[in-house]
This record gives sequence, C-alpha cells and structure tokens, in this order.
Amino acid sequence: MKEHTPKDETGLFTKKVSRRNMLKTAGVGGIGVVIGASGFGGLLTLSEQRAKGQTKDIVPFYGAYQAGITTEAQDNLYFASLQVTTDKRSDLIQLFKDWTEAAAQMTAGKLIGEASLNTNMPPKDTGEAKELSPSNLTITFGVGPSLFSKEGKDRFGLKSKRPPELKDLPKFPLDALDDEWCGGDICIQACADDLQVAFHAVRNLVRIGRGKTIIHWAQTGFQRTKQADSQKTTPRNLFGFKDGTVNPDTNDNNEMNEHVWVRAGDGPDWLVGGSYMVVRRIQMYIEVWDRTILKEQENTFGRHRDSGAPLGMKNEFDTVDLEAKDPSGNRIIPEDSHMSLSRGDGKAKILRRSYSYADGMDPKTGSFNAGLLFICFQRNPSKQFIPIQERLAKNDKLNEYIVHRGSAMFACLPGAKKGGYIGDSLFG
Amino acid sequence: MKEHTPKDETGLFTKKVSRRNMLKTAGVGGIGVVIGASGFGGLLTLSEQRAKGQTKDIVPFYGAYQAGITTEAQDNLYFASLQVTTDKRSDLIQLFKDWTEAAAQMTAGKLIGEASLNTNMPPKDTGEAKELSPSNLTITFGVGPSLFSKEGKDRFGLKSKRPPELKDLPKFPLDALDDEWCGGDICIQACADDLQVAFHAVRNLVRIGRGKTIIHWAQTGFQRTKQADSQKTTPRNLFGFKDGTVNPDTNDNNEMNEHVWVRAGDGPDWLVGGSYMVVRRIQMYIEVWDRTILKEQENTFGRHRDSGAPLGMKNEFDTVDLEAKDPSGNRIIPEDSHMSLSRGDGKAKILRRSYSYADGMDPKTGSFNAGLLFICFQRNPSKQFIPIQERLAKNDKLNEYIVHRGSAMFACLPGAKKGGYIGDSLFG
Repeated sequence: MKEHTPKDETGLFTKKVSRRNMLKTAGVGGIGVVIGASGFGGLLTLSEQRAKGQTKDIVPFYGAYQAGITTEAQDNLYFASLQVTTDKRSDLIQLFKDWTEAAAQMTAGKLIGEASLNTNMPPKDTGEAKELSPSNLTITFGVGPSLFSKEGKDRFGLKSKRPPELKDLPKFPLDALDDEWCGGDICIQACADDLQVAFHAVRNLVRIGRGKTIIHWAQTGFQRTKQADSQKTTPRNLFGFKDGTVNPDTNDNNEMNEHVWVRAGDGPDWLVGGSYMVVRRIQMYIEVWDRTILKEQENTFGRHRDSGAPLGMKNEFDTVDLEAKDPSGNRIIPEDSHMSLSRGDGKAKILRRSYSYADGMDPKTGSFNAGLLFICFQRNPSKQFIPIQERLAKNDKLNEYIVHRGSAMFACLPGAKKGGYIGDSLFG
Repeated sequence: MKEHTPKDETGLFTKKVSRRNMLKTAGVGGIGVVIGASGFGGLLTLSEQRAKGQTKDIVPFYGAYQAGITTEAQDNLYFASLQVTTDKRSDLIQLFKDWTEAAAQMTAGKLIGEASLNTNMPPKDTGEAKELSPSNLTITFGVGPSLFSKEGKDRFGLKSKRPPELKDLPKFPLDALDDEWCGGDICIQACADDLQVAFHAVRNLVRIGRGKTIIHWAQTGFQRTKQADSQKTTPRNLFGFKDGTVNPDTNDNNEMNEHVWVRAGDGPDWLVGGSYMVVRRIQMYIEVWDRTILKEQENTFGRHRDSGAPLGMKNEFDTVDLEAKDPSGNRIIPEDSHMSLSRGDGKAKILRRSYSYADGMDPKTGSFNAGLLFICFQRNPSKQFIPIQERLAKNDKLNEYIVHRGSAMFACLPGAKKGGYIGDSLFG
C-alpha cells in the first residue's frame, strides 16, 4: 500500500479561524452568515434554517448545555473514547475549537467545507453523509480523569482543575474489565436516527484530531427505531425487558437540576452546566437468559416482562411498593431483584441513556457478542451511580446473566455559546 | 453461573406441527387462521392484515421468490453464517420447517408464540421486538457448499444435489481471508429498517436451531436511513462514493430473470427461483483514503464523488463511454478504475445489496475497523461475480485502500408457498 501525504489536514481550520476573525472585524455575529465564502456555503444559523423551513430533524448544537444528554434518545449511537497524543496545551485548545465548528456544521446537516471540492486536495468532508437527513444528530464531548493528570504528570496545566468527583470508578465485585474497553482522555458520543450519520460524525472528528488524538475504543449501538403504533414507549433491552422506566423526566428542569446538571458550588466552576457520564460495557449472556423460565426472568428484574409493570401490578408506571407481600408473607418483588437494588431509598436517580450492541460472535464462547453500552448522566457520581452499582454488584440477581467488561467516567462539558467553543470554560 | 435447563426449546414446534395437521384435517388452508388458539393468536394472513390495515412496513414472506433479494434495501442488516452440528437429515428438515413458520411470524411483525406467556417456561420469543414496527423485515435463507458434502462426506444425502456452481470461490489475488469470516453451511440474512428487529430475528432463529446449528460468524450492517429530501437515491459507501448505480432494475422482471434468478435448465430443478449469493467482508482503510486527494479518489472509482457521474459527465446515470479521451489523448476514465474493470464488456451484471459495517477499533492498526459487507445476487457466479472479481483483484486501483477479509457463497433457496417450507424443493 502506498503512503499518502496528509496534505490538508489542518488547512480547513486555519481558514476557519481567519474567517472568524474576519467576521469579528466586520462586526457580524453568528456562524455561517456569509454564504458561499471560502467553503462555508450552506451553513446557516438555526434561525436562518428555520426561516427556510430546514429545521426538521435538527437538534441545535449551541446552548447552555450540550445536546445528547437530555435530548430524547435517537435510534443509533457511535461512541469513541480517545487518547490524547499531543503534549501541547495549545494543540488541545485548537482541537476543541476545530471540533466545535465541525460539530456545529454536521449537526446542522451540513458537510464540512462542502462547497470547496478542490480535486488536488483530500476532500474536507469524508462524504458518506451527503444527501442524508441531519437525523437529529447530537455530538457530546467529555473529558476523562487522565486528561488532567496521568501517572502523576500534569499534562496540560489542568491538574488543579480536576473535580474530585472525576476519577476512575472503584472496582466493583464481579467486574471483569478489559483494559481495551476502559477509560480514555476524551469521549465523543454521537447519536442520530441514522447510524451512517453518527459514524460519519465521529470519523470526521477523529480525522480532525489526527496527530493529536488516537482512538482508544469505539462502539456502535442501537435501540428500537419505530414503534408499531408510532408511540414512544420505553425501549427494551436485549433481555426483552423495558429499560429506563424510572428515568427522571428530562422535560422537568427541576429534576434535571437536581439529578443531572452540575451546579454552582458542586465543584469547579468550569463544569457548571456539565454532567458526569458513566459508561459501562455490559456483556449479556443472552443464550443463558433465553433458557431461563419467565418467572425467574421477572423475579430477576422485579417487573413483568410484557407490561413492564412492577411485579404484582398492572401497568408500567404503577407505584412501586417494595414491601408488598404475597399471601404467604413473601415479598412480591424480591429483595435481590434488579429493581429493588437499583432503587435503594429512591432518592438517588441517574439519567440512563443506554444503547444495545451486537458485535457478531464471541469467539471465546460461540455465542452472540451482545449486550448493553450502559450510559448514564448525573450530577454527582459518588452519591448516584457508585452507591447504586455497589448494591447491584454485590447482590443483583441479574449478575448471573451479565458481566461488566468496560468502564469509563467522563465529565461532559457545559454547552458552547456561539463564538465560544466546547471546553472554553476549562481552558479559558 | 448457574446452569439453566432448556425446558421448552422444541415445545413450540411440536405444537406447530400438530396444529398444521389439525388445520389440514379441518380443511382450513393458510397460516394462522385460528386466532388465539395454542399460542398462535395474532398471526394473520397478509390478506387478513390488509383487511385490518396492518400491512404498513410488512414485506410478504411467502412467495415464488424469497424476499430480501430484489426487495428494496432496508436500512439495517444482521447477517449470520451457521454451521450445522446435527448429522440427522430429519433434524435439518424439521429445522427449516420451524424456521419457515417463525420467519413468517416475525416478518409479519408478530412475536413467536406471543399469546402464551407461561411463567414456568422460558418465553417462546425473546421479546425485544415487542411493540416495534415490522420495519420491512425480510429473512433470507441460503445453503453453502459444505452442507452438501464436507471433507468428502455426504452429510445429509444431498451430495448429488449440489449444483456445480455452488462451490468455494477461487482464491483471488490479494485476498487476505480469515477463516473465521469465511464460508458456512447455512446463511440467514435479516434486513430491516430497525436494527433491533433484524437482530431479534436472527437471534430467535439461532435459538430455534440450538442443538442443530451453531453460529460460525455474524455481522451487523447499515446503510443510509433517510435522505434529507425523503428521496431515495443511490446510497454511499464509507469512501463517500455512490455504490450501486449500475445495479440491474429490480422492477424489471426480464432483467431479474436474466441476471438474478436461477431458471429451469440452469442446474438442478430444486434451485429454480433461487439465486446465488456471494458475500465478501471487505475492510476499508478509511484513514488512508481520507488522506488521498480527490482527483485520485475519483480516478480510483472512475466517477465524480459529488454527483456520482462517470468522469467527464454531469449526472449519475449519464451513459458511460469508457473510450472517451481528454484533449491530450488520455482516457478520461482510467482503465484501472473500479468502474472500468467492474464493467468489462458490460454484459455480466450482478445485483449488489451491500451494507457498511463499523466494528469499533481494529486493535492491530488503531484505526476504525470498518468496511463493506459486500453482498451480491446472481444467476451464475462463474459468468458473473467470479470474472468481475478476477479483473478487479488483479488491477483495480481501489485495491490500495481495501482488503478482502471474508468470503462465502450460498445458494439462496426458492421462496416457500403457504403450507410449504423454505428448502422443500431441496429436501422434498
């Protein structure tokens, strides 16, 4: 195979910066106002798109919070964990600036540098999302504890800024973690209703990061696309059970402020408006599960499979009574069921936003290599995910059927305002 | 992990047979006419569903041909290659009968045995597709050469029935095949507009085959879901180029008869109405490609990236003139371009129906493990895929950027009539 020289890996973004300066000088605000100039043709502000009726399937990128956290879950996920290879702080800052602009373009359904197809350069956009719907693409960036310091080294002058909450998760009982599915300096979560759009986004961001970052691990994910009756109901995991019934209400700002968003006084100011993301790659022994009688499956989750109702109840959202007993005096919902243990005293809630995966065959077992890329967001992992998982790891009946293979924690940054960039509160 | 006894792996199908006999005895034709009886409630014939307005997103399963060949490509694929572990011909026949009934149910958007949730048995359906749209699910079965004989052994009394065309593909130059991605006794191709629906289908069929088959390899695939303008255009591969422009017209019966369907006199009668499927797992070095200048990319394919037009032309479907020269007398479309070599004399056509894959990171290179699960259908591989691939493997410019890692050929069986089963022409 021939070696190809990377001729234009950075050209786009050099131009971008000068364009931004140009706009600044000219006193013109916003992104993409100049149509057709220097390869940015077609990028409109959301209000311009609205005026043109182009907002269908577009989730705004800029805002107080990053999209992809409280956004209603899209159908597909492409998730990448990256390692930073540059040791220059300025490189890292420029990368986040470049990523911000590219992410704003792609989430608006535009290709990067679409209008400039110079045949003597590599195309600025890899092209496979051309003609496709924006597909509600969201791109969410997070930073891992190792970005702040690694083996004691203050890599980018950020060591003192690490929030105490941002650290490797403790080892939980039964964890069987593979290093190749753990950790990472930076994460990019791309979610879209079209997997080709999600993959395109991460691929182009990784490409922009070439020479500064490398892929550490990456995962494709899916969840149900269409309800038969076009209603949105709680999706089912690969065990056939509804997953996410007791999620806090993403439309309720009070709940989001209480459980999801980092707030002033919680830790360093730079993370206010961000959220801690925990990712666990959970392999599911679906063949073993499939041989298990339904009663045992339902006792394992603490819910009826069909309706999603708590055991002994009729409907999915019926009030849970963990103390309820059958005529023989036994608890209807077993104490070691997944629901009982997850719930605890009911006060610590996490926002789950997980995706199933099916990666072909597991050559070690000859079974499906399938499971859940568990993703949750929260304000304070020490009070939320960690105590919940400690209870589950010790006693959850579900542990017979699953094993945790990967683990990572990231601080998802606050949103960017137009003219700013993702990470500006951290680096600024 | 506890051992769970498979309590009801075959119960469903024992019942099914007796139910079919019952229907026969009662003189009632069709599948699923008896509503609510013995776990088959909810399965209606397509005409009954039509009467109820339930045909949205349903591709009929029964017919002269199997669906999933000339069916317009759905968004997602789950493909499994299986090895047969039983040595009993009767087991194999029963399996195809059971698969046929289950496939008919699932493609109609029904769960298997939906109505009978006996909590003392494992559920008959794994449940994760409950509430989901049928999503245009198609399930296509094929048989590989090794089903007919393996290491010289006539496994199931089928040896004499193997069509001469059904054999392992020759080794092509530059092939770098991994055994774990090659061959298989039986293939199941599930395509649907929802990956969860496609996965659910294969998982349940593999489950039904437990004790008779094991998974040899399996692959998730995707292609674009939604055009921005809701139009259907030719999908793009992960190199950003349109893929499938010169496919024969699936709406033209003459073209399908000439290029896709096996016809009387082509070989053994049992395969008339079937089609030969070639599968190649092609890894794409997308990072190398992304560093290549556009002119070189376009010369590699012989087409313009943006429009998909042949080089020198305006529109995707403009007539190709391989002899056209530029003012200096050089061919506009290079002789070693993918298009020139694929085309040859233009007479041998194959029906391509490929899906992209993105399986995380390739640990050997640190790059995306991504590419194309190339799938094509044809009437005669010796005259169609094989000579095309011989030309490509020797001289295709694209070989700098791709490598063939997997290979298989299957004879996709003719369709089943109601009351019959997929494979009845082979075993009957």
